[in-house]
Amino acid sequence: MVMQTMQIRLTNGLINEIKILVDLGIYPNVSEAVRDSVRMLVTSKETPKGIPPAREEEIKTIQEKIQKEVKEQFQNPKGTEDYYPEEMSIRNKVFDVLRKNALKFGFLEVDSPVIEDLDLLKAKQGDEIIKQIFITEKKGDEELALRAEFTPSLARMFIAKQKAIPKPVKWFCINRVFRYEKPQAGRQREFFQFNVEIYGCSKPEADAEIINLSIESLKSLGLNEKDFFVKINNRKLIQGLLSEIVEEKQLEDVMRIIDKRKKISEDEFNSELEKIDITLDQIKKIKIFLDSKINNLNPKNELAKQGLKELKEILKLVDKKFIKVDFSVVRGLAYYTGTVFEISDTKEKFRSIAGGGRYDNMIELFKGDKTPSTGFGMGYSTLRLLLKEKGLLPKEDIGVDYYIAIVNKDVKEKAFEIAFNLRKKYRVDIDLMQRNLGNQFDYANKIKAKNVIVIGPDELKKGKIKIKNMKSGKEAEKAIEDINV
Amino acid sequence: MVMQTMQIRLTNGLINEIKILVDLGIYPNVSEAVRDSVRMLVTSKETPKGIPPAREEEIKTIQEKIQKEVKEQFQNPKGTEDYYPEEMSIRNKVFDVLRKNALKFGFLEVDSPVIEDLDLLKAKQGDEIIKQIFITEKKGDEELALRAEFTPSLARMFIAKQKAIPKPVKWFCINRVFRYEKPQAGRQREFFQFNVEIYGCSKPEADAEIINLSIESLKSLGLNEKDFFVKINNRKLIQGLLSEIVEEKQLEDVMRIIDKRKKISEDEFNSELEKIDITLDQIKKIKIFLDSKINNLNPKNELAKQGLKELKEILKLVDKKFIKVDFSVVRGLAYYTGTVFEISDTKEKFRSIAGGGRYDNMIELFKGDKTPSTGFGMGYSTLRLLLKEKGLLPKEDIGVDYYIAIVNKDVKEKAFEIAFNLRKKYRVDIDLMQRNLGNQFDYANKIKAKNVIVIGPDELKKGKIKIKNMKSGKEAEKAIEDINV
Repeated sequence: MVMQTMQIRLTNGLINEIKILVDLGIYPNVSEAVRDSVRMLVTSKETPKGIPPAREEEIKTIQEKIQKEVKEQFQNPKGTEDYYPEEMSIRNKVFDVLRKNALKFGFLEVDSPVIEDLDLLKAKQGDEIIKQIFITEKKGDEELALRAEFTPSLARMFIAKQKAIPKPVKWFCINRVFRYEKPQAGRQREFFQFNVEIYGCSKPEADAEIINLSIESLKSLGLNEKDFFVKINNRKLIQGLLSEIVEEKQLEDVMRIIDKRKKISEDEFNSELEKIDITLDQIKKIKIFLDSKINNLNPKNELAKQGLKELKEILKLVDKKFIKVDFSVVRGLAYYTGTVFEISDTKEKFRSIAGGGRYDNMIELFKGDKTPSTGFGMGYSTLRLLLKEKGLLPKEDIGVDYYIAIVNKDVKEKAFEIAFNLRKKYRVDIDLMQRNLGNQFDYANKIKAKNVIVIGPDELKKGKIKIKNMKSGKEAEKAIEDINV
Repeated sequence: MVMQTMQIRLTNGLINEIKILVDLGIYPNVSEAVRDSVRMLVTSKETPKGIPPAREEEIKTIQEKIQKEVKEQFQNPKGTEDYYPEEMSIRNKVFDVLRKNALKFGFLEVDSPVIEDLDLLKAKQGDEIIKQIFITEKKGDEELALRAEFTPSLARMFIAKQKAIPKPVKWFCINRVFRYEKPQAGRQREFFQFNVEIYGCSKPEADAEIINLSIESLKSLGLNEKDFFVKINNRKLIQGLLSEIVEEKQLEDVMRIIDKRKKISEDEFNSELEKIDITLDQIKKIKIFLDSKINNLNPKNELAKQGLKELKEILKLVDKKFIKVDFSVVRGLAYYTGTVFEISDTKEKFRSIAGGGRYDNMIELFKGDKTPSTGFGMGYSTLRLLLKEKGLLPKEDIGVDYYIAIVNKDVKEKAFEIAFNLRKKYRVDIDLMQRNLGNQFDYANKIKAKNVIVIGPDELKKGKIKIKNMKSGKEAEKAIEDINV
């Protein structure tokens, strides 16, 4: 059983009362008593066994008090995350790498409001995401909600400038999206997405550009072909080929089942297809297609021909060592019209790291002029998990270059002046607490300061300061001018 | 009348119908007809005058159709902002400067969830902000809402680590907060705040550190003492001195009126004070205090003495050319307990750029152990206005270093390879559209590419490429190796 340490705050009075429970032998120790209170709070279980009946009421009262105190501490809502300095520094560094990389590919960063009209967010009808939209309580007539993905907002922004802006438009954004699910393990209600779009280009070059950017994004974080791969397919190809095997009206269901193929057994796959009246002969043909090599395909169907041509064209322009053609990649039923791709860790241990493809009807769906579009989304959560597993999380960067220790109040003003000058170039902290020197060094050590500068009256008279390197422990005396670089 | 150009999309059918209205002489031109439709939509006015009665119905139908189309385009909700690349680049640059500067002062960046428990956001009771909280529609029992400021969330985060973390804690964050007001000119519902906190230090050094950071933040964006100044006061000083003049129960109202002094006339100030039974003699004393020089103050009251001492101590540690002691700065009635300060543009043309101070009871309010705290908030909107007025907005940075033009499809793969290599170092775009060379140059020009590299079969044979500098117009031929730095 993996335990996590957390801080709780209880009054002395309550702790004394818990101790009564321990003394009674009902709990082995105070911690277990608190844990059990919390368990009961969560599961609404009965009070523990073995309580002398005469004291049941008394004990119940104590437990209720403990529960109340634990409950009364403010917590972040389930599915949200507090970014403390270490984690924030890592997030900033990862996003900086993604940003710089996207800029190198000629994409420009944009950002949409968090709050959007509910109608916009609902326009992609039939989508699973719609059920998870955070809607705000109305004041007046507007129906407002929180963005649950970037596609609708960026489409709206593109459409507003559609006539004037030179095409293709290459945009990206990195920010939070929101999904309101009931709290359950591992489901986040706020999370970060790196979202990339090309509007106004129907050519396979645009799909290749998108795929190359997704690969380079991961490579620039230190991941390589041993860590991840890109599964690629084309919806025209698969739809075209399947329409030679099954009936038009079965197509959607067949694709839905193909999408699940990797997650279910061979038998389940067969029986699901049989359930929608696909014959054994048809199933055999579907499998032959799914397991084909791309070079062995020779479709007669026009749609499939077009899809195959696009796929082959893309393969010429991307780094093949990351690519695996996989005809079972369908990416749900939503709006994809051509290229589809997914990035997974090599062992497919985590959820997809990224996914995307071409959706040429999307801009029209949001009431713009028909515009070919392609793009992808990459979630920070899975990316972070993979980076962590591979030991590739950027090093947090939280320690200041210099901590300025102040020997006494006579040199305080001079110390602040030295800090002021050093801060033009370095990260500098300074004693704000009027603490003694030992406590100042202790604090400097805890906040991971790289060097401590000691400002004292004797040294100042000589125009000198003492510097201690906190890693090596070496001390040196320097002229003040020498550190004011 | 200042007009702004906007794009609207109307069907040909509708445009033809508008033309009927113009032909009828009801509108001078198509634009005016559309404008009037929108006006009616907004103000629910009647249809325009001068319509032949026989055609009123017909015209009304046409106008309704136009209104519907304009309305049907998705817009960003009122009070929110779309960040297109230019504006996004500026926002990123300003925030980068603020971030780097805060790090140099030894502050560490944190971020809280956008979504918080409503109870947390309401804990600072009596606050004006509470009325403006965005509450989300419930699913289940949780009452969730959007952060309207950072103080509650950061307090919660601090309290969760309060026992373990070395004090003082120096944190900052730069992100969005949300306030749900009815749409009105200039009021934003989503906006960015730079928020800075020091927890666990009761000394004036911490207030000085906060004020110095706020000043340096603006200086590092290019603003100087001609552009802004810091008004500083101390709540202990003003409360102590006023309590020698007025009764305890009048104190709050008197401070509220003092807070408004700069915005109202002398007569209004007097009459507001008289309304709460302050005598003319008392008013005279209040004014003498408000207009005093700090060095002429000699309070007997202990609280005032303490406040004056703090204020003088801070003045020793800050850059005096930015500072103005102003006893009328009160910063509302909410939770400030000592130092208070506000930053304004020199002409006080805009709303405050920043404001903050000491709130030693704040952490307790959020159920933590009592912890002295000081901090400030700076809004991006006003800051941006001031930077713009002073010509100090960072230059947007959107043009790629190289645009790669492709002469024909035979060299496409090689062109992508060159792009791939160049992107290790430079920002590079490449033709994705299979356009002719003229159109490629046209696009490169529109997206502000700094150089265009032309990849053609003849040059490639010689291992060369052509580069054109788009500013100077100069062309050069280079070896491929020479650009693959």
